[in-house]
Amino acid sequence: MQAGKPILYSYFRSSCSWRVRIALALKGIDYETVPINLIKDGGQQFSKDFQALNPMKQVPALKIDGITIHQSLAIIEYLEETRPTPRLLPQDPKKRASVRMISDLIAGGIQPLQNLSVLKQVGEEFQLTWAQNAIISGFNALEQILQSTAGTYCVGDEVTMADLCLVPQVANAERFKVDCTLYPTISSINKRLLVLEAFQVTHPCRQPDTPTELRA
Amino acid sequence: MQAGKPILYSYFRSSCSWRVRIALALKGIDYETVPINLIKDGGQQFSKDFQALNPMKQVPALKIDGITIHQSLAIIEYLEETRPTPRLLPQDPKKRASVRMISDLIAGGIQPLQNLSVLKQVGEEFQLTWAQNAIISGFNALEQILQSTAGTYCVGDEVTMADLCLVPQVANAERFKVDCTLYPTISSINKRLLVLEAFQVTHPCRQPDTPTELRA
Repeated sequence: MQAGKPILYSYFRSSCSWRVRIALALKGIDYETVPINLIKDGGQQFSKDFQALNPMKQVPALKIDGITIHQSLAIIEYLEETRPTPRLLPQDPKKRASVRMISDLIAGGIQPLQNLSVLKQVGEEFQLTWAQNAIISGFNALEQILQSTAGTYCVGDEVTMADLCLVPQVANAERFKVDCTLYPTISSINKRLLVLEAFQVTHPCRQPDTPTELRA
Repeated sequence: MQAGKPILYSYFRSSCSWRVRIALALKGIDYETVPINLIKDGGQQFSKDFQALNPMKQVPALKIDGITIHQSLAIIEYLEETRPTPRLLPQDPKKRASVRMISDLIAGGIQPLQNLSVLKQVGEEFQLTWAQNAIISGFNALEQILQSTAGTYCVGDEVTMADLCLVPQVANAERFKVDCTLYPTISSINKRLLVLEAFQVTHPCRQPDTPTELRA
């Protein structure tokens, strides 16, 4: 099977796509981006071609090594197992558990409740409050957890998968006008991560599909 | 640190708790159950004691090896890394990616949208339709994915973490009156899994906290 350059199906603003972009950047994996606009044409994720690629009709999806993987954490774990350097999971199983716990809390406990398709179902009138509630309830827990796991970053002093989940989620929180100053641990880790190159080049404001007015 | 017998904080009907109970059973890990009733007393997960244990106020949580882990998939991955036999993730990284993709689809893409706390927010009138929509949309995708990954079980012929997610989610689907005959692959895998001892002894109808009228 011809592997070729990995292809990332991504949307500039999708927090789940951003997680994977950071992993690819940190691991120095060269890839092509195929933008899937979640809003244009009623949502390009609903096209027949994309559904064949990811029946969940969600980004990201990564074509790599002859397979297509969706679900951002499954993609990151695959990259970690096949391209282990630099590591995104610590060596110690207990620390790995902390990383996965924080990642799952964000990827399973916050983001799914405030993503585009759910907010559509909630109805325009209630969207902001609904999204804020999901994020606030998750961040209340996360702030407490980080107080016992964090060093420079979410778990200790190395960048891990948990950090790849944190930064895009904080960006969503800001978009939904959540007051992040209430979460000093989350905010200070986020600030330390945002200056790193892998987080900068993958930022939603610097993607091939970022609209001109949102570029920075 | 004295490790002692692991303690699982669990609710008989929680699908996420059930996932972990199956992992513990398959791996032959002896443990104590502390039932956390998600309904009684306004929800025992909101007690101060339990919040100190899991700030997300959710079950399951597992006390093991001197640490407390929450988030069911993080718990299962920890058990896999520290008690590798029998394995719940295949050896081949591509198959591992399939297992994690299916697990994340259920644990991040379906269950969070139909759990108790979200349904409370939706309001009684819309709960059933909301839960059904979440499950149907996830099962439509899952049925298609399983057609290319499944053997006897979700991924090939060995029981994996994906199966630990599937069976409890099908039970939820049935509770919410989703017509599972529309999903022949999901249904037949579920049937083959339900006869296995580890799935039987951990079934919600056979837990220490199962109410008498629901016992079987």
